[in-house]
Amino acid sequence: MNALKWSKAEKVTAKQAFDTAYQRECEALARKLKEMVAAAREPVDIWRIHDFLTTQRKQIDEKYDYRYSVLILVFARLLREGWLKEADLEGLGEDKVEKIKYLANR
Amino acid sequence: MNALKWSKAEKVTAKQAFDTAYQRECEALARKLKEMVAAAREPVDIWRIHDFLTTQRKQIDEKYDYRYSVLILVFARLLREGWLKEADLEGLGEDKVEKIKYLANR
Repeated sequence: MNALKWSKAEKVTAKQAFDTAYQRECEALARKLKEMVAAAREPVDIWRIHDFLTTQRKQIDEKYDYRYSVLILVFARLLREGWLKEADLEGLGEDKVEKIKYLANR
Repeated sequence: MNALKWSKAEKVTAKQAFDTAYQRECEALARKLKEMVAAAREPVDIWRIHDFLTTQRKQIDEKYDYRYSVLILVFARLLREGWLKEADLEGLGEDKVEKIKYLANR
């Protein structure tokens, strides 16, 4: 996987896809957060929200790893989880798109 | 301070005052949290909310220490910060109330 070469144009596409997925996931998180905060009644609800954010932040920090050596795996996961759509990958070479789709469906 | 004796009735008053202050502070925190969440626009705003909650939780955990050996100091701080009112201390001995008020104003 490390041996894949990324052209300048592919890097632009990749960065845009990565940023789009991150934005979508954070928007979904913000919606969930608003629901939880609106439903909070007791002090313990605030601490549950904090625990939830701690977990989400850790997962998102780990997931969004923009090293080219792991980017195919990252994109496969984002595609599987729905944060990326196939259309977001237009501009990447066919070899990369195939790898991403293959790994996303495993 | 450790040598202070707490009567059964004083313990009831103390626990109630402690719980009331905790409830008030958490309600204020929930209001602030709602404002911050409503104003969140970017992913970084979510992480700022998380940082804010981490700090608040740590401070609140440390502050609300219900050991009788430190309770006078805890009440003094809560009175100074406005989470307790003098009326909440009615039922405690005059010696304790005086100590709390003295320490709150230092």
